[in-house]
Amino acid sequence: MTQKSQPTQTISSLQSWFDQKESDLLKDFFTFLQFPSISTDPNYAPQVLECADWVKKYLMGLGFSVEVWETKRYPTLFASFMKAGPDKPTLLIYHHYDVQPVDPIAEWHSPPFNPVVRNGQVFARGAQDNKGQCFYTLQALKALLERDGTLPINIKICIEGEEECGSEGLAGLLKTHQRELKADYLAIVDGGIPAADRPAVTLGVRGLVTMEVEVHGSNTDLHSGQHGGVVFNPIHALVQLLASLRDASGKIAIPGFYDEVAECTDAERKQYSFKFDEKQYVTNFGANATGGEKAYSPIERLCIRPTLEINGITGGYTGSGFKTVIPAKASAKISCRLVPGQDPEKTRNLVADYLEKHAPNGVKVHVHRHTGGGPAVRASPFSKVAIAFAQAYSEVFQKPCEFVLEGASIPIIAELVKASGSEMVVLGLGLTSDQIHAPNEHFGVDRIKKGFLIMARVIELLGQTK
Amino acid sequence: MTQKSQPTQTISSLQSWFDQKESDLLKDFFTFLQFPSISTDPNYAPQVLECADWVKKYLMGLGFSVEVWETKRYPTLFASFMKAGPDKPTLLIYHHYDVQPVDPIAEWHSPPFNPVVRNGQVFARGAQDNKGQCFYTLQALKALLERDGTLPINIKICIEGEEECGSEGLAGLLKTHQRELKADYLAIVDGGIPAADRPAVTLGVRGLVTMEVEVHGSNTDLHSGQHGGVVFNPIHALVQLLASLRDASGKIAIPGFYDEVAECTDAERKQYSFKFDEKQYVTNFGANATGGEKAYSPIERLCIRPTLEINGITGGYTGSGFKTVIPAKASAKISCRLVPGQDPEKTRNLVADYLEKHAPNGVKVHVHRHTGGGPAVRASPFSKVAIAFAQAYSEVFQKPCEFVLEGASIPIIAELVKASGSEMVVLGLGLTSDQIHAPNEHFGVDRIKKGFLIMARVIELLGQTK
Repeated sequence: MTQKSQPTQTISSLQSWFDQKESDLLKDFFTFLQFPSISTDPNYAPQVLECADWVKKYLMGLGFSVEVWETKRYPTLFASFMKAGPDKPTLLIYHHYDVQPVDPIAEWHSPPFNPVVRNGQVFARGAQDNKGQCFYTLQALKALLERDGTLPINIKICIEGEEECGSEGLAGLLKTHQRELKADYLAIVDGGIPAADRPAVTLGVRGLVTMEVEVHGSNTDLHSGQHGGVVFNPIHALVQLLASLRDASGKIAIPGFYDEVAECTDAERKQYSFKFDEKQYVTNFGANATGGEKAYSPIERLCIRPTLEINGITGGYTGSGFKTVIPAKASAKISCRLVPGQDPEKTRNLVADYLEKHAPNGVKVHVHRHTGGGPAVRASPFSKVAIAFAQAYSEVFQKPCEFVLEGASIPIIAELVKASGSEMVVLGLGLTSDQIHAPNEHFGVDRIKKGFLIMARVIELLGQTK
Repeated sequence: MTQKSQPTQTISSLQSWFDQKESDLLKDFFTFLQFPSISTDPNYAPQVLECADWVKKYLMGLGFSVEVWETKRYPTLFASFMKAGPDKPTLLIYHHYDVQPVDPIAEWHSPPFNPVVRNGQVFARGAQDNKGQCFYTLQALKALLERDGTLPINIKICIEGEEECGSEGLAGLLKTHQRELKADYLAIVDGGIPAADRPAVTLGVRGLVTMEVEVHGSNTDLHSGQHGGVVFNPIHALVQLLASLRDASGKIAIPGFYDEVAECTDAERKQYSFKFDEKQYVTNFGANATGGEKAYSPIERLCIRPTLEINGITGGYTGSGFKTVIPAKASAKISCRLVPGQDPEKTRNLVADYLEKHAPNGVKVHVHRHTGGGPAVRASPFSKVAIAFAQAYSEVFQKPCEFVLEGASIPIIAELVKASGSEMVVLGLGLTSDQIHAPNEHFGVDRIKKGFLIMARVIELLGQTK
């Protein structure tokens, strides 16, 4: 942990800049949030592209050179400002402009693409993940450029449009754009802090693989009176299969699932903060921390243990009232979070093969093995970029900064690190209570400001290195 | 079984009547089918009421006295034609004008409420269940009245509008309208035959209870990376609970579930036909008959054994693409088919209590115990009404008529028998391949004609009794 620091002169001047422009900034931010850039649902394709175009113009307005790297679906925007010259380090910053779907829409208190501020929080899909965090980065660059006319280091920005649906396009681009992406440091600004008063830089994320399992029975939906007891109900088959994936101790019961897991060493454990407030968790989320393996603590289950979660399930009649049907099929969406050691491809096939091999007699089981996803990543707490960010957080929060591990995944990180040849950190101002991927996603204006200060300050700090 | 009979003179004249009027009849039938009278979904309330009004006017047009018995939701139409006088028996005929929902709508080859005839089959929601069967009854009455100006027995018709959502309204009416409903015989014309070439009268139906189980976890949907391994996923809890309801032998594993089941005696078994063609089943439905208890044959599992089926399940993200969410809740719709001996209320509470008591630590389980449903019913093969129907089927099919048991339920039967003080049979011309309660429901014009002949002929035959 770094020591608590006094606010610098720079920080107070940046604060003034933000305070003076706040209402104009929010206007721009709201425009960004109004695009329903839902990448996973093909119905929103035009709106995702409109959003990309808006971001591109915004970057050009800041004075960046912008390249639009086309993919099969949504482009990655690559922007650079290289005037600091070859003697200064290059920081590559990662964001994404796409967002998650909005279901269940009925649970939103205000429309997800009409942002509003309530109690200092901006409510909208993407308010935090990742438009909010992207927006404060852009403001940090804007403030420094307005003040100095240039930047003290070279900056490259990579903003993709497929993070919420597997980053396939960017994964392809990384193979052909290594030269452009070359950097000393990589900041993945799509992360968070453990609590509003706990400044932290993230040095690890879990990996991710996803798949969809379909159970097929009869060739059409059947009447549960005329066929009940005769045909094997695909919903029964599905719940039976899915229930068999976990044992009573919360372990994943698929043989081999944990074989490659690299257990966290004592030395590693000392580098990270492992605080978790179970009482606060109940207060925040209305549920006990009783998921996962009983042999581990909640924070261990979240950061250093893999998971298998059912993210969606559907079959039969799910409308209002009742329909006595035995459906022709039932399906579920499954994801696994991975820890160091686990190979995504291998884990995906292990789970999918298990499901297909254990199809009950009378139904057919097919697993769609999604491409995309990626392995877990861990970074060093001793890199210049980790140290600079920790200092920036300390200055802005006026508290020592922790190093933490994150349960979520940013599947593209491993490949970005490789393509750019850089040392990485994950950071951000997200809180688990922001309801990202859920109804009523929100992000505090105070945290937009903090993020802005941290990004501007870290660019200054890295300008003093090398 | 009754003996094969030669077609009577009456039958040939009725056949001519039908053939001459077929295109006009179909026009009326299509009008009946065009009302989306989906009783379970409150959005269709106006259309259900319009349908009731159309049926009422149709009955009045035949010369029946019609009473509209109002309920909280949809009226029961009660029509009578009592000119045969007190020396002649009274036959009470039961139908319903409401239909099932149409999901999954995308699987229909033509719109469910725009009937079309393809290969001699009328395709529409309700084409068979129960508008098609109701319509041939109406035509039988029409033909006899046109020919004779009167009917040889007293006829009462009860057509309800809530069969597909629990018959709550009619259940209430039965308590206050016993006098009007009084009859010697009760024909529930909402059944079928085991195969197109197997005339059969049904002497038993299973009972039904339904419920919906909800599993609640956190107070909002959560991100499966930020919470996976920490919170107990309600979908996991639900599949675990539902999977625990059945054991490996296909038996329902809830203690006490079979305690009250009255095993079928050898004497009873001799009264019924127990044919079942497993090969034909695979051909018709594309699935093996591997559901239910392994200790029983498919036809036993269908007719004399109870079931527990999951009719719908939903939780998390079920749209296209993927969303890495741990939902706040997940739910499933469950129904049990009951056999003689089982008390609906007791079985419903047994299942619901089991589910609530076995809630995994970290989630809350709540079961909505639906009212409605009803017990199984069995009737005698030796009643005058059973014998008359068997003869009518034999004459029309030119084959001996079987007595069978039915796996489906018509929950109101038990109460209708009690209220009317009558001997009952269940009958109809439905086939399990008609896809009732499923996409592309259909009913053969040839079977509409057969149903018409049987209903007309049975009225003549009962006119000769007493």
